[in-house]
Amino acid sequence: MEAERTLHDEEITRLGELAAQLRVDAIRSSTQAGSGHPTSSLSAADLMAVLIARHLHYDWVNPPNRANDHLIFSKGHASPLLYAVLRAVGAISEQELMETYRQLDSRLQGHPTPALPWVDVATGSLGQGLPVGVGIALAGQYLDHLPFHVWVLCGDSEMAEGSIWEALDKAGHYGLRNLTAIVDVNRLGQRGPTELEWDLDTYRRRVEAFGCHPIVVDGHDLAAIDEAFDRARQATGPTVVLARTIKGKGVPDVENQPGWHGKPLKPDMAERAIQALGGVRQIRVTGPKPEPVRPAAKAEAQPEVKPPELPQYDKGAKVATRNAYGDALRALGSRPDVIALDGEVSDSTRADKFGEAYPDRFFEMFISEQQLVAAAVGLQVRGYRPFAATFAAFLSRAYDFIRMAAISRADIALSGSHAGVEIGADGPSQMGLEDLAALRAVQGSTVLYPSDAVSCAALVAQMADRKGIVYLRTTRGKYPVLYDNGDDFPIGGSKLLRGGKDDDVVLFGAGVTVHNCLAAADELAHEGITARVVDLYSVKPLDRQRLLDAVRDTGGRLVVVEDHYPEGGLGSAVLESLADFAEPVRVNHLAVRGLPTSGTSAQLMDQAGIGVYAIVAAARALA
Amino acid sequence: MEAERTLHDEEITRLGELAAQLRVDAIRSSTQAGSGHPTSSLSAADLMAVLIARHLHYDWVNPPNRANDHLIFSKGHASPLLYAVLRAVGAISEQELMETYRQLDSRLQGHPTPALPWVDVATGSLGQGLPVGVGIALAGQYLDHLPFHVWVLCGDSEMAEGSIWEALDKAGHYGLRNLTAIVDVNRLGQRGPTELEWDLDTYRRRVEAFGCHPIVVDGHDLAAIDEAFDRARQATGPTVVLARTIKGKGVPDVENQPGWHGKPLKPDMAERAIQALGGVRQIRVTGPKPEPVRPAAKAEAQPEVKPPELPQYDKGAKVATRNAYGDALRALGSRPDVIALDGEVSDSTRADKFGEAYPDRFFEMFISEQQLVAAAVGLQVRGYRPFAATFAAFLSRAYDFIRMAAISRADIALSGSHAGVEIGADGPSQMGLEDLAALRAVQGSTVLYPSDAVSCAALVAQMADRKGIVYLRTTRGKYPVLYDNGDDFPIGGSKLLRGGKDDDVVLFGAGVTVHNCLAAADELAHEGITARVVDLYSVKPLDRQRLLDAVRDTGGRLVVVEDHYPEGGLGSAVLESLADFAEPVRVNHLAVRGLPTSGTSAQLMDQAGIGVYAIVAAARALA
Repeated sequence: MEAERTLHDEEITRLGELAAQLRVDAIRSSTQAGSGHPTSSLSAADLMAVLIARHLHYDWVNPPNRANDHLIFSKGHASPLLYAVLRAVGAISEQELMETYRQLDSRLQGHPTPALPWVDVATGSLGQGLPVGVGIALAGQYLDHLPFHVWVLCGDSEMAEGSIWEALDKAGHYGLRNLTAIVDVNRLGQRGPTELEWDLDTYRRRVEAFGCHPIVVDGHDLAAIDEAFDRARQATGPTVVLARTIKGKGVPDVENQPGWHGKPLKPDMAERAIQALGGVRQIRVTGPKPEPVRPAAKAEAQPEVKPPELPQYDKGAKVATRNAYGDALRALGSRPDVIALDGEVSDSTRADKFGEAYPDRFFEMFISEQQLVAAAVGLQVRGYRPFAATFAAFLSRAYDFIRMAAISRADIALSGSHAGVEIGADGPSQMGLEDLAALRAVQGSTVLYPSDAVSCAALVAQMADRKGIVYLRTTRGKYPVLYDNGDDFPIGGSKLLRGGKDDDVVLFGAGVTVHNCLAAADELAHEGITARVVDLYSVKPLDRQRLLDAVRDTGGRLVVVEDHYPEGGLGSAVLESLADFAEPVRVNHLAVRGLPTSGTSAQLMDQAGIGVYAIVAAARALA
Repeated sequence: MEAERTLHDEEITRLGELAAQLRVDAIRSSTQAGSGHPTSSLSAADLMAVLIARHLHYDWVNPPNRANDHLIFSKGHASPLLYAVLRAVGAISEQELMETYRQLDSRLQGHPTPALPWVDVATGSLGQGLPVGVGIALAGQYLDHLPFHVWVLCGDSEMAEGSIWEALDKAGHYGLRNLTAIVDVNRLGQRGPTELEWDLDTYRRRVEAFGCHPIVVDGHDLAAIDEAFDRARQATGPTVVLARTIKGKGVPDVENQPGWHGKPLKPDMAERAIQALGGVRQIRVTGPKPEPVRPAAKAEAQPEVKPPELPQYDKGAKVATRNAYGDALRALGSRPDVIALDGEVSDSTRADKFGEAYPDRFFEMFISEQQLVAAAVGLQVRGYRPFAATFAAFLSRAYDFIRMAAISRADIALSGSHAGVEIGADGPSQMGLEDLAALRAVQGSTVLYPSDAVSCAALVAQMADRKGIVYLRTTRGKYPVLYDNGDDFPIGGSKLLRGGKDDDVVLFGAGVTVHNCLAAADELAHEGITARVVDLYSVKPLDRQRLLDAVRDTGGRLVVVEDHYPEGGLGSAVLESLADFAEPVRVNHLAVRGLPTSGTSAQLMDQAGIGVYAIVAAARALA
């Protein structure tokens, strides 16, 4: 590889100059913006100077180059340093840096986002960049079989996040030799000293115990950093460079001082600091380029991709939608870009069906839902279509990761099984009852909740090409297949299951409550009340036209039934959609209002007031 | 303490009999129920037998006894074992166990909940019992100064959850000598082997690196377990008993076999197993009782509790509500039961005001939001009133913990600062924009979002006595004080800021948008449109009467403005509240519909369409 390990004085000088430029640019851009985190940038400037000049294999004019290394700032608040890096490599201009940082509509936002083509994912919620890096490294080592390396700059404060240890654990478990975390141990957090301050030895022991190779280094010794990165790249497993650094390094007034987190230097102070650092420079660094990737040898070797043959179900047969998820996902496996992940419950979510058919494209994340979602985000960075599954209730564990994935403009499919009180005896801890609200509120998300196996399979097939966060809610129990194989279930649509022009009332359900609505319509018919039944399988986007028709045809008599808490779910979706509609509407909204206990599915649905008789009563009250 | 360390054969026999009873009861109760997790119970039966017979200091007839040890099943799915324990100590009857487990309205639910007075918190979402145990131990060691011990039974699968490592890290940091985690390392998870299987040495090194004292033991060797628990109780810091066990232990057909997770034995199989275990027993075990607590010496020594003197603000002065949170919390500090916690951002949330005044009642949780919320839950188990704060965006990290806290019927106060696009330049990763939806959907929750410092302080004061999960959303920037000191802000109420009977339109805001609504009303007045302005500071419960009045008075012309994504927030709350109201209503709902970037507060609110001119236009369109 490289002929020598010890750097010439000349090279040290060159790197020192580059580091000085990064510092100066971090200071002046944040002072100009009037906000930002210069001191958190200064501590890591030497690390990044050595990395970009000598170790990061990156084709800056072609960020989509699949051979490029990846660089993730898990400590996203050090954006002034990242943007200084981008200027140093010629990716952005000095003008853009100085005039747009943190301004409206700038791509140089307060924390990095993929508005910049060199940024894979949004960071700024700590402890997320490393878990995403694990996903990218999984792709590189197990799917792409490419020699790119994933470098993740972490802060020391974020080492207190459990997600960091989920990530290192998985890095160790999967032996990710293409992953290096660089921890900027600058001793100071936002409001004072970190938990471990400069106790590098404890960090070292933790990292080692979690199956990664620690490399302790003075984060301001350029030659030592260089050697550390060499060792990291050549290691046979995941590495963690633990760099002892000084917050504010290079600006004596703020070095190792509390009270300077997230504060730009005042203009006069900045000017003095820049002078002391040798002033503004115009260094353009050219680091190593990646080896060219051979033209898609792997793809060639693969057989023609067949369109997935979706599973077929007999109308009336009882099939759980979670089973249909597994069946459809296995069918989608004919696409080599489809990957499945699970949180150690694949025999429940039925992702195991995919895992059995395509073991090389199935990643077991064990019980670490944050890492589960983060790995999916990392995989889609590399162009894959990840499907991550666990219980609907336990996706709540990863809510911050899902929120951030939306800011990353990530395209990921999530499946939450065991929704609602329908699950029965296991009790409320296992019931997804706030997932529709939480997932609907994610920016740009899609939320699907099929009632039967045919519609579920059809929706799973569409999830693979849907942009953004796509959430599928599945049901534990078996219910009759309602639709014909081959029926169309467009996202944003709905299905009319019962009724015509002269209906007295409309019953809107989704998932399991569709079956209750159908039974209620039968009951109501005996009473002479004609009830329309609509399956709102697409909770977001919702089929507004179907709602408007329902209001017009019935004089605004609607019942909405959901196996979910009353706030923010299907009922809210309906109401939001009708908010500005001038005609009078009365919505009788049935949802789970109390705290459920154990019981059978039917008992619990009845107790919650979302069973057949509650629907009948609600419709009767309107009709 | 105890005279001897080595157990007599007689005692071994007694413990073995007890363990056999626990196994038999776990098997028969789950077989009777037709669901449950017997094999996960069998592996830990010996551990629990020794614990309850010889180490758990517990007054079973008086669960609220403040001197009692605490026993938490972090592996909540082992509920058959817990309920077998409760029968063995005489807390519940054999009849209750056999007839009600997992049945409707039973307190013996599929996973434990505090429906049982001996259960502190609901478990069943893995990796949560231990973090809550840390909170209870913090209370014992730092606040109660009582010698009770906290024992937490963990599964090995849940050791993959980052929250476990947040918990051990904090246990080590705070030197919690009253905390013992007992890890039932039975090698098998739900769908197959765990990540580390029986690699006890790796567990040991991880635990040690995280600052806890590991004790490795054969989990089926009664004498060894006894010694381990002795050592745990006498240790000078937190301990983790790593017990090598066999899943299904005691039933040869299922011992160490995959495919038996969460499955009851079939009746014939159960019968054979029970016979082989020596049949049903009627052992009643009497373990050690806690030392009586001296009558509240600490309380006596304390001065009379003064009612908190809430901070006063000048009307019109610009004050951030996050500052008012800090001021009011400090004022509440006159109550000795009020405790504050923060996620290393107390200078932003302004919880630091409390921390400075009451350092002994302030717990720094560093950047580990899951542990932050879990510690709050643990503190309320001991009767304290915890206030936990971080950025609104980062509470999403703890969403599963908040969801479970609601099932625990925990009374905790949460403060999320930096809500919405209002925060400005830091960008979307730092903006709480789905928090209203997520927190509203939590069962039994209260959601508050004050617009000014006076109302904020008044609400904080009420939070201390509110049941359930109480969420306060605060704003980063400074806005004028709108109300008079001493004004009343009941939870469930609202404030009429502008308008009378003849208004053309009503503008509903909360938090920062109230100020935009006021400015919009001024603008509208110039156009001859009379706009009512209502401050919906109580987002849940919502002031329905105020909404009905608005509809009646204006013919249903409402504008709702929120600094939040459109789904599930204030707009949905309004619409849900009006769902069944027969009169025609048109709601023009302004919310953040795109993905925000950096910018100033005003720019971002304007861009999102929640600024003054958007409100004016929305009102004009209705009027």
